[in-house]
Amino acid sequence: MTGSLTVVGLGPGAPELTTPAVSMALREATDLVGYDTYLARVPETETGQRRHSSGNRVETERARQALQLAAEGRSVALISSGDPGVFAMAAAVFEAIEKGDAAWRALDVRVQPGVTAMLAAAAHAGAPLGGDFCAISLSDNLKAWATIEQRLEAAARGDFVIALYNPASRARPEQLGRALELLRQRKAPETVVVYVRAAGTSEMKLSVTTLGATDQPDADMRTLVVVGSSATRIIPRDGAPPWVYTPRSEEARA
Amino acid sequence: MTGSLTVVGLGPGAPELTTPAVSMALREATDLVGYDTYLARVPETETGQRRHSSGNRVETERARQALQLAAEGRSVALISSGDPGVFAMAAAVFEAIEKGDAAWRALDVRVQPGVTAMLAAAAHAGAPLGGDFCAISLSDNLKAWATIEQRLEAAARGDFVIALYNPASRARPEQLGRALELLRQRKAPETVVVYVRAAGTSEMKLSVTTLGATDQPDADMRTLVVVGSSATRIIPRDGAPPWVYTPRSEEARA
Repeated sequence: MTGSLTVVGLGPGAPELTTPAVSMALREATDLVGYDTYLARVPETETGQRRHSSGNRVETERARQALQLAAEGRSVALISSGDPGVFAMAAAVFEAIEKGDAAWRALDVRVQPGVTAMLAAAAHAGAPLGGDFCAISLSDNLKAWATIEQRLEAAARGDFVIALYNPASRARPEQLGRALELLRQRKAPETVVVYVRAAGTSEMKLSVTTLGATDQPDADMRTLVVVGSSATRIIPRDGAPPWVYTPRSEEARA
Repeated sequence: MTGSLTVVGLGPGAPELTTPAVSMALREATDLVGYDTYLARVPETETGQRRHSSGNRVETERARQALQLAAEGRSVALISSGDPGVFAMAAAVFEAIEKGDAAWRALDVRVQPGVTAMLAAAAHAGAPLGGDFCAISLSDNLKAWATIEQRLEAAARGDFVIALYNPASRARPEQLGRALELLRQRKAPETVVVYVRAAGTSEMKLSVTTLGATDQPDADMRTLVVVGSSATRIIPRDGAPPWVYTPRSEEARA
């Protein structure tokens, strides 16, 4: 008997942003493995599906558990929020495969994409990712802060729109401030900055400011921050939040 | 009577990758506006929905047409492939709003995110976007080639994983070769390169190589190219395509 492992992305939160392909993979699985908060978002089936929930900080153990269950012949769905390939579980799975049991390379392992947080955040704000962009996680749990600084500098030098994931947490309250300070030294003060909290959920909250004005950023792990390129623009509106977009074309860029 | 405009992303191709939120927006619209190839992917309804199709190269006219219909009181869905905010129609809409009729700013304009091509391509290959990454369009229809080179250089300097959209077309057969040559001068020859054609469709095709070996790239507008960071790895498998992933952690990065 051969098991399988599908790594799925639920999308950013609202059920209507979960793809039908992911919903089907969740229904067909014999075993669901995931961080308890994400598992709680998956509707119960009537087929006696087993649920294996775990804490937030145990990605490697969770990946190994999912692979072990698949190796035992189970049909496993391993659950990520957003897209599993963007700062989520898919890389942890392949890392575990490379370091783990050689037999795991023969398993049927698939990844089902999803809507990652920056796409939902951008859609809520308008179209800030309309030009070339990059995505940087500000968490230094798994990489050195010097690497993050090197990437922020390069992103500023390339005049990319910058999406910042994991901007802050209780254990790391200062990262976002340091990142914005670095960018403030390299980009114009009128550079547009967008905060979207709980993107893609019913609690979504948008805040639009500029790099020069945002010295007290209010963000947590559920916030996605977008720092514009030199071309990113704000469209003010009467009695409604502004729209933010980055034109596809460059008109007299410096 | 107040109209509305929802800019939707169908996802990369397979219907099961279109979010329920987008499917609902398409069903509820009185008017569908889009490039004919994308419009053809939307199932017909029985409600007498009007369809307004146009060619590929008329983004601005299409955006203005959609806004005009909304201003006339229609409920319009404007259709993109992938995610509408990534090298697609959402930015064109906000550009048209900013330059257009002041009344358009009062319209109910929304963007519904979707699965963009690089996420589907990455999922098919494994998890190549597992670290920090950037997305660059190689089309110089709307920006100078010098800007593209500046961004490629910055992306190499920051050791980002690089997703290349619009790598080549009949009118621009040489861009991808020039981009890879630039990267070859700045990154190690063993840097992993992934080509995914028709990502997220039943015709999906994967090819894995290295920057040093890929001197004759075979790509068209339906190809998504991922150039790895220094950390991106290949997991070889017997009798199956290799998996490609970028570890979340940096282990002894240079």
